[in-house]
Amino acid sequence: MTEPSPPAPSAAARREALRTLLATAGVDALLVTDLVNIRYLTGFTGSNAALLVHVDGDAGSRLCTDGRYRAQVGAEVPDLEPVIDRACAAALAALAPQLGVQELGFESDHVTVDGHTGLVEQAQPVTLVRAPGLVQRLRVVKDANELAALRTACGIADTALAELIDGGGLAPGRTEVEVALDLEYRMREHGATAPSFAMIVAAGPHSAVPHHSPTATPLRAGDLVKLDFGALVDGYHSDMTRTVVLGRAAEWQRELYALVAAAQAAGRAALVPGTDVADVDAAARGVVAEAGRAEQFVHPLGHGVGLQIHEAPLLAGTSSASLATGMVVTVEPGVYLDGRGGVRIEDTLVVRDGEPELLTHFPKDLLEI
Amino acid sequence: MTEPSPPAPSAAARREALRTLLATAGVDALLVTDLVNIRYLTGFTGSNAALLVHVDGDAGSRLCTDGRYRAQVGAEVPDLEPVIDRACAAALAALAPQLGVQELGFESDHVTVDGHTGLVEQAQPVTLVRAPGLVQRLRVVKDANELAALRTACGIADTALAELIDGGGLAPGRTEVEVALDLEYRMREHGATAPSFAMIVAAGPHSAVPHHSPTATPLRAGDLVKLDFGALVDGYHSDMTRTVVLGRAAEWQRELYALVAAAQAAGRAALVPGTDVADVDAAARGVVAEAGRAEQFVHPLGHGVGLQIHEAPLLAGTSSASLATGMVVTVEPGVYLDGRGGVRIEDTLVVRDGEPELLTHFPKDLLEI
Repeated sequence: MTEPSPPAPSAAARREALRTLLATAGVDALLVTDLVNIRYLTGFTGSNAALLVHVDGDAGSRLCTDGRYRAQVGAEVPDLEPVIDRACAAALAALAPQLGVQELGFESDHVTVDGHTGLVEQAQPVTLVRAPGLVQRLRVVKDANELAALRTACGIADTALAELIDGGGLAPGRTEVEVALDLEYRMREHGATAPSFAMIVAAGPHSAVPHHSPTATPLRAGDLVKLDFGALVDGYHSDMTRTVVLGRAAEWQRELYALVAAAQAAGRAALVPGTDVADVDAAARGVVAEAGRAEQFVHPLGHGVGLQIHEAPLLAGTSSASLATGMVVTVEPGVYLDGRGGVRIEDTLVVRDGEPELLTHFPKDLLEI
Repeated sequence: MTEPSPPAPSAAARREALRTLLATAGVDALLVTDLVNIRYLTGFTGSNAALLVHVDGDAGSRLCTDGRYRAQVGAEVPDLEPVIDRACAAALAALAPQLGVQELGFESDHVTVDGHTGLVEQAQPVTLVRAPGLVQRLRVVKDANELAALRTACGIADTALAELIDGGGLAPGRTEVEVALDLEYRMREHGATAPSFAMIVAAGPHSAVPHHSPTATPLRAGDLVKLDFGALVDGYHSDMTRTVVLGRAAEWQRELYALVAAAQAAGRAALVPGTDVADVDAAARGVVAEAGRAEQFVHPLGHGVGLQIHEAPLLAGTSSASLATGMVVTVEPGVYLDGRGGVRIEDTLVVRDGEPELLTHFPKDLLEI
């Protein structure tokens, strides 16, 4: 949407923060191969790269990409010495000995089994050491730049949905695909690079399918219409679900909506620093279970969101992690009645010391259109 | 764009073809974790899945996904027994002993180092055996269904570009972003699910950046405008680049265009079954080198395209593979003059016994708009 982003002001600071973790992990350097982590640590947005972050500082650090991105890497990352090579990870592994590295950490949660074999050969005599999730540990708490991008992304989704509805875009006769395209187009007009994931527009019985792809099915009067969508801004993803009724809601729709809204409020209220993510999930799930509908809430309550649409922490009964100030998560309970319809209500929020900060402001009262 | 796809008629046939490779690899089953390979082998389009293909047949094979996709997996893959579990790969590894598996192949080019550790534990006493690239070996030659989808995708891109130009969409004053959005919108109106990758619209000096993201820069008279884009249809990607001039081409633009067009023609002519991919690259690169511009052709000549925008074979000097009938590849030489402008011309073609079949029909004569 804009000129190539200038280097994120905090990219160097993020690399500094990573160095503390490297020391703890007992490695001299980390070979970063996950492109999302590379973007976080450098601002580089190309599609092929590897990054070696040296514990001693940026002088011994290197960013590798291929010839297609020679100009871009210079513009986006002027503060790191570039290496131009198509086989980026291998090239940096081979450089490690010259950079004084003896123990080279690698992202064992990203490097494949075969990729690892190659790196071991390239890096000799340097030892490769598993060092998973170090950058993710930093990414889980968002800094001010990240929060600004997330606020913008969520704001665009809010505006686009309001425009869609005000413009009569949710009406019987329109197809799910038409609605999805309309909503996407509006987000992009407001500055989204793209939708933040494949949008869900699900009308009538389709709303009971948690992840439904838009079809040529026309919306009909009386339908529940579930819209799960978001905007991508500077690499950051927004995520929001609203479910509306076309026309006057039937009693079962009203009850279902009230149940999910209550569960969602309970989930939001549980977003307190220090709380275990499983307890947040339980807070919302308990409301649904009390109504005898536990079996119809078939997915976790929410997930972290940032440079990826799904990232840590996962708000699920099977997860274990504590919430911390500055984490950004979704809260999205859903109850799905097979063949009839379903309701999901989802916000993106920042965990704060007091109340969580709501980023998705579109109203959550039952909307009869 | 359409109702959920019915199971690909050839999905079962593809699993049968895979079984021949399993026998050769000396495994009783393959644990497929790459979602693209899973889609190829089953037609399943959800975002979380694992597949166990048993060498003895589909009775011992299983497809795992999570609760969000319970209905979808039944509709898309009625011919395989589903397993519902969020940790799909682990769940199927744990089932392997009951399914009579002793040697379980895994995609060592996809499973991470940490993921492998988990699978080894889950699968006990089954032995995990590296089995990389087996499905890719099948995917490299496209079947009739795949070629049909690719033809449709390429046709949509052709139509959208023609409409864009006929409708005056490439004109001084419009920004790169506006052009990209316009072109995308037209592709989607014609049935594309989405663009097949982040579209490149690069005007003036930006055209010299091989992979340039559209910006708010307005097109200007005299600009070279490079458009690299494609449509996604039923999971298949089209890929085409055209470079045009806004107004009358300057002599240097005309020369540059003629050079790249000659290189591209040489590359296309070299698409003959049995030819080594490095020789195809060399055929086009030689034309550029003779003109003294080898240094300004900074990327491989082309790549395979199908369920992924970049897949095997890579047409590059560093690659070694032989072309075969039914492979679908791009031929896309480019010459980039830093700070002035660049030209790239790209087609998607099917390797055939005689002439290659051109899928991207938009004309390649120098277009002065």
